[in-house]
Amino acid sequence: MTRKTIRTGIIGATGYTGAELLRWVAGHPHAELHAVTSRADAGVNVADRFPWLRGKTDLQYVAPDSGLVRECEVVFFATPNGTAMTQVPDLVSRGIRVVDLSADFRLRDPLEWQKWYGQPHSATDLLPEAVYGLPELFRDQIRGARLVANPGCYPTAVILGFMPLLTARVVDTVNLIADAKSGVSGAGRKAELEILFSEMGESFKAYGVSGHRHLPEIRQILGGLAGSPVGLTFVPHLVPMVRGILATLYAELTVAADLQAIFEDAYKNEPYVDVLPAGSHPETRTVRGSNVCRIAVHRPDQGSRAVILSVIDNLVKGAAGQALQNMNLMFGFPETAGLDGIAVVP
Amino acid sequence: MTRKTIRTGIIGATGYTGAELLRWVAGHPHAELHAVTSRADAGVNVADRFPWLRGKTDLQYVAPDSGLVRECEVVFFATPNGTAMTQVPDLVSRGIRVVDLSADFRLRDPLEWQKWYGQPHSATDLLPEAVYGLPELFRDQIRGARLVANPGCYPTAVILGFMPLLTARVVDTVNLIADAKSGVSGAGRKAELEILFSEMGESFKAYGVSGHRHLPEIRQILGGLAGSPVGLTFVPHLVPMVRGILATLYAELTVAADLQAIFEDAYKNEPYVDVLPAGSHPETRTVRGSNVCRIAVHRPDQGSRAVILSVIDNLVKGAAGQALQNMNLMFGFPETAGLDGIAVVP
Amino acid sequence: MTRKTIRTGIIGATGYTGAELLRWVAGHPHAELHAVTSRADAGVNVADRFPWLRGKTDLQYVAPDSGLVRECEVVFFATPNGTAMTQVPDLVSRGIRVVDLSADFRLRDPLEWQKWYGQPHSATDLLPEAVYGLPELFRDQIRGARLVANPGCYPTAVILGFMPLLTARVVDTVNLIADAKSGVSGAGRKAELEILFSEMGESFKAYGVSGHRHLPEIRQILGGLAGSPVGLTFVPHLVPMVRGILATLYAELTVAADLQAIFEDAYKNEPYVDVLPAGSHPETRTVRGSNVCRIAVHRPDQGSRAVILSVIDNLVKGAAGQALQNMNLMFGFPETAGLDGIAVVP
Amino acid sequence: MTRKTIRTGIIGATGYTGAELLRWVAGHPHAELHAVTSRADAGVNVADRFPWLRGKTDLQYVAPDSGLVRECEVVFFATPNGTAMTQVPDLVSRGIRVVDLSADFRLRDPLEWQKWYGQPHSATDLLPEAVYGLPELFRDQIRGARLVANPGCYPTAVILGFMPLLTARVVDTVNLIADAKSGVSGAGRKAELEILFSEMGESFKAYGVSGHRHLPEIRQILGGLAGSPVGLTFVPHLVPMVRGILATLYAELTVAADLQAIFEDAYKNEPYVDVLPAGSHPETRTVRGSNVCRIAVHRPDQGSRAVILSVIDNLVKGAAGQALQNMNLMFGFPETAGLDGIAVVP
Repeated sequence: MTRKTIRTGIIGATGYTGAELLRWVAGHPHAELHAVTSRADAGVNVADRFPWLRGKTDLQYVAPDSGLVRECEVVFFATPNGTAMTQVPDLVSRGIRVVDLSADFRLRDPLEWQKWYGQPHSATDLLPEAVYGLPELFRDQIRGARLVANPGCYPTAVILGFMPLLTARVVDTVNLIADAKSGVSGAGRKAELEILFSEMGESFKAYGVSGHRHLPEIRQILGGLAGSPVGLTFVPHLVPMVRGILATLYAELTVAADLQAIFEDAYKNEPYVDVLPAGSHPETRTVRGSNVCRIAVHRPDQGSRAVILSVIDNLVKGAAGQALQNMNLMFGFPETAGLDGIAVVP
Repeated sequence: MTRKTIRTGIIGATGYTGAELLRWVAGHPHAELHAVTSRADAGVNVADRFPWLRGKTDLQYVAPDSGLVRECEVVFFATPNGTAMTQVPDLVSRGIRVVDLSADFRLRDPLEWQKWYGQPHSATDLLPEAVYGLPELFRDQIRGARLVANPGCYPTAVILGFMPLLTARVVDTVNLIADAKSGVSGAGRKAELEILFSEMGESFKAYGVSGHRHLPEIRQILGGLAGSPVGLTFVPHLVPMVRGILATLYAELTVAADLQAIFEDAYKNEPYVDVLPAGSHPETRTVRGSNVCRIAVHRPDQGSRAVILSVIDNLVKGAAGQALQNMNLMFGFPETAGLDGIAVVP
Repeated sequence: MTRKTIRTGIIGATGYTGAELLRWVAGHPHAELHAVTSRADAGVNVADRFPWLRGKTDLQYVAPDSGLVRECEVVFFATPNGTAMTQVPDLVSRGIRVVDLSADFRLRDPLEWQKWYGQPHSATDLLPEAVYGLPELFRDQIRGARLVANPGCYPTAVILGFMPLLTARVVDTVNLIADAKSGVSGAGRKAELEILFSEMGESFKAYGVSGHRHLPEIRQILGGLAGSPVGLTFVPHLVPMVRGILATLYAELTVAADLQAIFEDAYKNEPYVDVLPAGSHPETRTVRGSNVCRIAVHRPDQGSRAVILSVIDNLVKGAAGQALQNMNLMFGFPETAGLDGIAVVP
Repeated sequence: MTRKTIRTGIIGATGYTGAELLRWVAGHPHAELHAVTSRADAGVNVADRFPWLRGKTDLQYVAPDSGLVRECEVVFFATPNGTAMTQVPDLVSRGIRVVDLSADFRLRDPLEWQKWYGQPHSATDLLPEAVYGLPELFRDQIRGARLVANPGCYPTAVILGFMPLLTARVVDTVNLIADAKSGVSGAGRKAELEILFSEMGESFKAYGVSGHRHLPEIRQILGGLAGSPVGLTFVPHLVPMVRGILATLYAELTVAADLQAIFEDAYKNEPYVDVLPAGSHPETRTVRGSNVCRIAVHRPDQGSRAVILSVIDNLVKGAAGQALQNMNLMFGFPETAGLDGIAVVP
């Protein structure tokens, strides 16, 4: 029998990922908030910063080095890239399990990490043991992990959309395209001109066409699935909405295949991947606030090109929800514990 | 000890109110969906119409006269105005308890109802016993009610905002103003040009200045609180967002009073009214998807005018959530059962 | 010397395309509104329907068969598909020149038209002479045309984005992808549930993956450019904004080429195609309300895949602005007459 | 006969007001851009910062102390509050006429200015001669002014809405309410968390209830109209849209009056105030990108309360358009020169 609750810490809980973690942990049957850190807001009530938590928690932010953090059984990092790698080694050495929602432990190769994140990796010792926290691929490893690297939002949507095609070996893997669209919350809670309401509102654009940090992460996982490096063009876009990602994926079929059956079979036991009936067009709102990934499979004109549509809530299945799903696995709780909220629509 | 679950019916579950009821009932610990009706969609899977419910219910819509409805213990009406009054008498006579989310049983005076809704009232016998389902005012009567008239969305925000001022008798009641702003979902799910995305997007307007159907409902309740007819100017507006109401209320103070204390005292035991600290400006998003009403009290320049800000989610505290709160009271469940979800922000 | 003004008619001026035509014609130095038709609104002041035109026109809608239409020198059709083909033959025979903004004369093959539009074409005699109204491709033919088929919004963005690649013969034409995103005004002004604000707001989706009516139109023109049928996958999406299209185009390079130079050269004399500096990411807002198409050219990782970003305002360069550009050509006015308004940003 | 063009300078042209000034000046028949300043962006092409101006200007930003500024005949300040007062005296002394779009010269009383803007006023000598640039009130003074204080956006909407009532002396002036709603561009282009897309999107709130800087400005002008200090409660709100203001105004009638006639008469000769027919509800989109203020007059239940609805585009009639209107008056151009663009709707 699993214990009733575990002491939970959130490092850097002032951004959107942190706020969403607070929401999910506050509603989780087996977790209790024990330490919530913010360097700038130490001493402030969490519910003063995020008033929708009034009555749900009376915690105050503490400094990152607070002793409360070391009393936790699990710690989530919702920090900017480059922070977790400086603190995780100490926590792990104390027996505290970690789910890192930043990018610090997602890439196996420290030089690749340095190339994309602009600084040397400071915890390379832990890279080999860090488990990529996509339960649909690495469920067993997550169960035993001390350190889980929670996937990026785009990678979650893109990998879940491509995975059955690669596993079934029915597509040309040197020729993949992921045209991905994200709500603006994916850009984080930073005081920057370009994500102001008046800059993003009533407009649409691509960005990072020459290279986005989620590209090597996707390539690494898809390459693992394919057994060899994949060719992937990844173009992210910003949608004038707050939450949600739709990835439109293109792949060339190399053999005749019943794509709908391949996807339904691949995900038939997955609690949080929902393969829609043939001909469907998932809307991002159908997963708003929920941990579900919805996927539809198309083959226009019955030709050789597969078009996969994959939607998630970038802050839930693309961040905090998936982190809790990983925590459930790590601690032997039911995988769906605390995660069954229905999307808020409209 | 209360029973575990009750059989629940939803009449007319194809609009936004109906969809929201489905979400809340599906997540309620003591209710199970038993009958969901739609004249047009009988035989269709509910989850085909609202795909975010896939995996949460396998019910099909049935016709309104289905025997399943008569097997329910509680029935919610989410129908256009004028429908419930034709079906409720039969249900009530069978011992089925009813929460009507339409306007049919909100006004005591059938002639007033006829004036605003353009047809004679067909169930005037039930008007005297129908209880106005605002728990903060009529909790005890709701507990014993056979028929609860669930308040309108604007009335909920406006009445909760004015109530402490009227109860404390500190304002001039002939001179009230409610400047209310609603997300577009408040206009319903109807195929009408004026609520198209391209009509409502990036624009803001008032409507119904000459008279809105929620005006007599608000006047009736406020008049009851004041002990005499109130003078109220009510101006609704449409905001380019989906969910949420903010009511900005103006009243003239007639005596010196500590408004903050009056509000905090009035709602100190209420689970779903949150009086914010002095000086606050509640955002509608802080209640998105939740059953909470957040209220802030202002007195600009310490003058004689009170300005009250009251926010709700029009589909939750303004409709489905309040309906479940009423059901909880009617069936002796904890008032908060199934209603403690945290707002989805951002 | 060209005459000062021409009498202009707009057939079906109650939708978004019609409204936009009214705006541009009202501000054109060489055109005057002479007849504006609407079957439903005959006798109504145009400015009562579209109050932003108050003070700009005192015309009333007339019935489509009004004699005023036959007094026009040019007539624009902003009608649902299938209407223009019934009225254009008579007008053309009277010497009235026509710009049809519907799809009736865009496809050369009447059987193809019938397949996509679900009815036989009733004016096949005129199909051979109808000129596809994309000035960047068919400027000379437009000058002498009696009947111009104004391109669809998606086709305008997609064709202008692919054209230099096909003309320069540097890409594999059997393997093209157009991932296109449109504001909701592209879906028209129709009382339909699925384009309500509360359905489209805060959400994003693909649609018509199995086949969209703009697909054969794009294929026809690109095939003409390529000299043989092209293979094109076209996936349209709806963005929660009112105006704007971004087409993200993917093509495989078959030879080494300086793509930036190819595009700059192709459009160096075009008044309404703006090739951005290398590395740019055009935002749809930069063309809002203006007749400009902005294009950026990318080649990620300097690999073999070209990624082209093309933005237009679907109602201007994608409809009414392009129609005026065509009119200018047909009547010998400066091509830019009345079309030089700057985008309204933010 | 007026001269053809005047050399025009814009100080601080990197915000929304500055960008909008650039759009209007670029399209003005009698003005040419001569100096556009930005301390941070000196040397940068204006069109690189605002790509929608590509092809419309090839100017580069210069430093604020550039000699080009002193070559101008008119200079617009689009600077943060507190900047213009340090530079205007020098410019005016050189015979350069100034339209200041910041708040520096709007309040007559330097102590009042200091109270609201938190610093002493440094150019009090110029305060007596600065003319408040609302043409509908001060047209004659503007014509001869060396220095025009361009009104704030809220004040423009509110004052134009109240003006006829005060002039006609039909309302109680100690009891006015202005419930105003603005698009987010009114908050400026600043890197601040609270105006991020993900903070403002899908939400609505009031702000500054305890006192907003536009309050003393409105009071000053309305007090002048009334002949004595007015009592005004002013509550601003932020709408999840980019452009537009709607002010909903409440006043108590003191005498019987034909309000519709009063408004139509007051504005019958005004080119940019459009009084709508009785019963109308103006939408902000009907003035998007245009210099028009649209007003509707209501008297609910034929009672004693007047409800006035007043809409403007905060960046046009509320800022840049009005500034050009003032420039037209100052230089003897037709008042409407360059200002007749039609609103961009939808």
